[in-house]
Amino acid sequence: MRLAMVVEYDGTDYFGWQVQPDQPTIQESLERALRRILGHPVRVEAAGRTDAGVHALGQVAAFSTKRTPDPRTLQRGVNALASPGIVVRELFEVDGGFDPRRDARRRTYEYRIDDRPWPSPFRSRYTWHARGPLDVEAMALAAESLVGDHDFRSFQAAGCDAEHPLRTVFESALERRDGEIVYRIAATAFLRHMVRNIVGTLVEVGRHKRTAGDFLDLLASHDRRLAGATAPPRGLCLIRVEYA
Amino acid sequence: MRLAMVVEYDGTDYFGWQVQPDQPTIQESLERALRRILGHPVRVEAAGRTDAGVHALGQVAAFSTKRTPDPRTLQRGVNALASPGIVVRELFEVDGGFDPRRDARRRTYEYRIDDRPWPSPFRSRYTWHARGPLDVEAMALAAESLVGDHDFRSFQAAGCDAEHPLRTVFESALERRDGEIVYRIAATAFLRHMVRNIVGTLVEVGRHKRTAGDFLDLLASHDRRLAGATAPPRGLCLIRVEYA
Repeated sequence: MRLAMVVEYDGTDYFGWQVQPDQPTIQESLERALRRILGHPVRVEAAGRTDAGVHALGQVAAFSTKRTPDPRTLQRGVNALASPGIVVRELFEVDGGFDPRRDARRRTYEYRIDDRPWPSPFRSRYTWHARGPLDVEAMALAAESLVGDHDFRSFQAAGCDAEHPLRTVFESALERRDGEIVYRIAATAFLRHMVRNIVGTLVEVGRHKRTAGDFLDLLASHDRRLAGATAPPRGLCLIRVEYA
Repeated sequence: MRLAMVVEYDGTDYFGWQVQPDQPTIQESLERALRRILGHPVRVEAAGRTDAGVHALGQVAAFSTKRTPDPRTLQRGVNALASPGIVVRELFEVDGGFDPRRDARRRTYEYRIDDRPWPSPFRSRYTWHARGPLDVEAMALAAESLVGDHDFRSFQAAGCDAEHPLRTVFESALERRDGEIVYRIAATAFLRHMVRNIVGTLVEVGRHKRTAGDFLDLLASHDRRLAGATAPPRGLCLIRVEYA
C-alpha cells in the first residue's frame, strides 16, 4: 500500500528535510514515527528536499508499507509521535507508482522579508530582516522578468546535482503584504538555493545597488559569481506542490 | 517633554502590560530601559492594558521626561535595552497633555482561531486551537450583530472597573484568512476580557451549540453567566489605536 502525506513544518530547529547522521531532520522524524506504528522500516520521499531552516506549509511526501493501515488512524499516530513543529495535514492512499518528486508539476515557494529598522518579534523566525526601506516597485519589476523558460545557472548553488539548469517559472511576484515583503515563485522545479539566490539579488535591487535591467542581464549571463549573496533560509517556505 | 511610542510585542512570555511585583511585564521593561537612558524614574502609560499573554502590533504608550532627548536616538536606545520580543516601532514628541488612554477614540483588536484537527506549528503562539470545523458563516453573522452602541455586560469579566458598560462598536467581522479564522473588532474602548468572552461565545456558535439568534439574545440579557467560556489570551492582538 502506498500513501501520500501533506506535511507542514517549522524548519527552524531542523537540519532540513533529508536524513543526516546525528542531526534532527524532518524525514528522520517521520520515518521514526512510521516505523514505530507500522513495525517495519519506512522510507519517506518528498517532493522537495528543503534545506536546513526552511519551512513548509504544504510539503508532499510518500511512503510504502506492507500493512493496510486506516489512513485517519495512521495520521493521528504520526502526529502523536512526530517531533514538535511537524504536522501531517493530510494522509491518503495513492497509486503504487506515485513518486512525489518526479510526478510534481508545479512547486510554489514564498520568501518573506522584513525591511523595517527593527525586526518584528512576531515574525523573526519566518522572515529575513533586511534593513531598508527597500524599493519594492523596482524589486517587483525585476522579479516579474523571471516568468517563462530560462537557464537559471546564475542562481544555482555550487554542488547542485540537477541534470540541466532549465526551469519554467509560472509565477514570480513580489508585493508588500501586512507590513512584510512577500516574494512568491512557482515553477516546475528549482535548482539548489535558487530561490534564496534570487531573493539575495532582488534585495540588492531594492537597495538600488542593481537595476531591474542589471537583474535581467545577470539572468542572461549564466554566471553565478555575478549574483548577490544567498538569502538566509528562515524566510523561505514551501507553500504547495501540485500534480498533473 | 512628553513623548509617545507605538509598541509591538509578543506577549507570550509576559504577565501583560501593567507593572506587577516580581513578574516580567511590558510596562516594566520599557520603564527600566527609559530610566537607564534618561537617568530618572519614568512612568509609561498605555492606551490599553493588555492581559498576560496578549500581543500587540500597535500599542500606544506615552511618558514624560525632564530631558530633551532626540527621539530617534532614544528609540534606538530603548530597542537596544528592552527585553526580547518588545520593539518600539515609532517614537515622537507629543503635546504635554497627551493621555494615550483617555484620548484614544478607536481601538482595533484581532483574534485568531485555528480550527483544523492539528494546531499549526507556525501559528500556535498567536492562535487559539479550537478544533472544528467551525461554521464561519454563522459566526460571522453573530459577530456582525455587535456593530453599534450596546451594553456589553454579558461579555464583561468579574472585577472589571469600568464606569459603565456601554461601548460603541465600529467594526465586528469574522472571516477565514490564509487557513485561520480572524475576528476583527474596533470600538471606542473595551471592557475587561470583552473580546475574549465574545470569541469564546462565537466559537460555540461555530459549533452549533448556539445560533446567531441566541447570541443576540445573550447580548440583550446583560447576564455574563449566560456567555461562553473566555477564549485564551494567545489568540488576541491589539492591532492599532486611533486618536481624534
